Amino acid sequence: MNQEEKYIKIIEKAFSKDFPTRNNVNEVGIGDDSAIYEIDKTITKQVVCTDAIVEGTHFDLKYFSLEDVGWKSIVVNQSDLASMGSNPNYYNVSCGIPSNFKTKDFKLLTKGMKLACDQYGGVVIGGDIVKSDKIFISVTAIGSLENSGGEPDNNFAMLRTNSMPGDYIGVTGSLGNSLAGRMLLNEGKRENYFSEIHKRPSPRVKDGLNLVRSGVKACIDVSDGLHSDLEKLCKASNVTAHVNVDQIPIDDRLRVTFPDSFIDMAISGGEDFELLFTLKSINQLPEDYKRQVTVIGKMVKPNNADLIIYKNTDSEILNPTVTQWKHF
Amino acid sequence: MNQEEKYIKIIEKAFSKDFPTRNNVNEVGIGDDSAIYEIDKTITKQVVCTDAIVEGTHFDLKYFSLEDVGWKSIVVNQSDLASMGSNPNYYNVSCGIPSNFKTKDFKLLTKGMKLACDQYGGVVIGGDIVKSDKIFISVTAIGSLENSGGEPDNNFAMLRTNSMPGDYIGVTGSLGNSLAGRMLLNEGKRENYFSEIHKRPSPRVKDGLNLVRSGVKACIDVSDGLHSDLEKLCKASNVTAHVNVDQIPIDDRLRVTFPDSFIDMAISGGEDFELLFTLKSINQLPEDYKRQVTVIGKMVKPNNADLIIYKNTDSEILNPTVTQWKHF
Repeated sequence: MNQEEKYIKIIEKAFSKDFPTRNNVNEVGIGDDSAIYEIDKTITKQVVCTDAIVEGTHFDLKYFSLEDVGWKSIVVNQSDLASMGSNPNYYNVSCGIPSNFKTKDFKLLTKGMKLACDQYGGVVIGGDIVKSDKIFISVTAIGSLENSGGEPDNNFAMLRTNSMPGDYIGVTGSLGNSLAGRMLLNEGKRENYFSEIHKRPSPRVKDGLNLVRSGVKACIDVSDGLHSDLEKLCKASNVTAHVNVDQIPIDDRLRVTFPDSFIDMAISGGEDFELLFTLKSINQLPEDYKRQVTVIGKMVKPNNADLIIYKNTDSEILNPTVTQWKHF
Repeated sequence: MNQEEKYIKIIEKAFSKDFPTRNNVNEVGIGDDSAIYEIDKTITKQVVCTDAIVEGTHFDLKYFSLEDVGWKSIVVNQSDLASMGSNPNYYNVSCGIPSNFKTKDFKLLTKGMKLACDQYGGVVIGGDIVKSDKIFISVTAIGSLENSGGEPDNNFAMLRTNSMPGDYIGVTGSLGNSLAGRMLLNEGKRENYFSEIHKRPSPRVKDGLNLVRSGVKACIDVSDGLHSDLEKLCKASNVTAHVNVDQIPIDDRLRVTFPDSFIDMAISGGEDFELLFTLKSINQLPEDYKRQVTVIGKMVKPNNADLIIYKNTDSEILNPTVTQWKHF
């Protein structure tokens, strides 16, 4: 058995209980040229996304274990599906790995992927393993949309293009923690609350379903930072955002640890993987879910000068320092 | 507009006529977190595969133009779908590209992808662009199975596991040309019949459909070489192959150019992307299609000693020199 075959066996073993391997009459998993899956008859639309992570660009093995890397490769895609309001079903994983990689390394990578699948849904059904100087993992995730009311044509999704003037802007969780984690890791502070968040981000799959079920029509995940992703939402929907900076959800620990910069960090920091969405009224959301999201502003008719206007509660216009979160 | 956004626009522009971009009610293409596509009601099973190509491993920019690289990234996946008997529908493309990449470089890459899509089917609906020292392109292709007879549950595919003792072994086209092309390129001989085949391989999408419609149950594409891929077919189906070396289809130009090694080249050479399949009888195939495939042997009950036995027409056992085609 060559090294590639060994690696395929490791993935096959990890996921074979969740999906038939080859030789099933109806479905075919890892081990053939392609995988085959059945489509539930109630589903008429599928959702597909791809996110790649590269050593040196998206993670540094000084701070990330291979299990962290495997985890991250899956959750960045779960987050993209979550932002559409979609349930993750299947993953195809393409791994570029160096010649000196060892079997135990590949097991750790697979373990991280499996943990993310178990926690947030979906199963690896195929992929490719190729030689590469630096590690890259490109995952394509396939999800399905929920049916809003029994009619097969009625599957619905949240899109970037659907924000309207008058909509409230909401966000799940709190912002800036992942950036804090990365900054502390870069300073050599390894074991702390923030660095754990940076290394093992949580995709908001359940939030995405809660939102789409409540009739939310527009959403994006915060992968490049609030400022950057809100700009994308505004551009795609042709609206301007008014954000009340005092309402941005910020973890108390972030305020304490970074007393001079927590607001800028919450506005610029990427990879929080929270969901940023707009809705007609907070009362669209179920009573017990309302507490888990924060309204941070409102969309208005497009203003040619600005995509986003930041104010405080006293309506003073602010100019927070925005730093581009760079993957590229 | 940053570089990543420029690249996304280039892909969006190339494929927007073939698939709606964002803001369509039912389908969403490039420009959101995920793409959404509708599923035809007659399709109950989908086929998905991933193949990645990496600079230095799968192509060398000394010989390959970026248009060749774009072409290859798509056709290797079309070939995997073809081997299942599946029609290609959608691609998600993950590109790792260096910082010094230029807009015109990305246009060439996209042009190659678009040409392959136009020629063999399917459309790019999404992907990811990340920074990487060396170019990699990982493509996930989604295809659909044809329906054998009107019943939605009746979609069928060719699998590696379905070969049976008594089956004839068939192959499309001819073998060894791509290896010849690579060898000549490595010797600095750029413009020749074989190197064109190596740089612009043709996936056998139509053959895959012809075969599956004729009731062929087992197939693999020749990406690692006849020997290596036939071994995989034998292992997966638990059979032994008897191959008549004199019947292996070899291009006359290969015999002339490599008079001492054409047989070994046809047995070892990878990336021919022909289809290798087994069937009960050649008469399963339509009369006008029979001429386009060659029967090279027969499957027998498994023999513990060998997966493949090579003989000539005089039934002498041969030991061809097999060289492993190495992607990894």
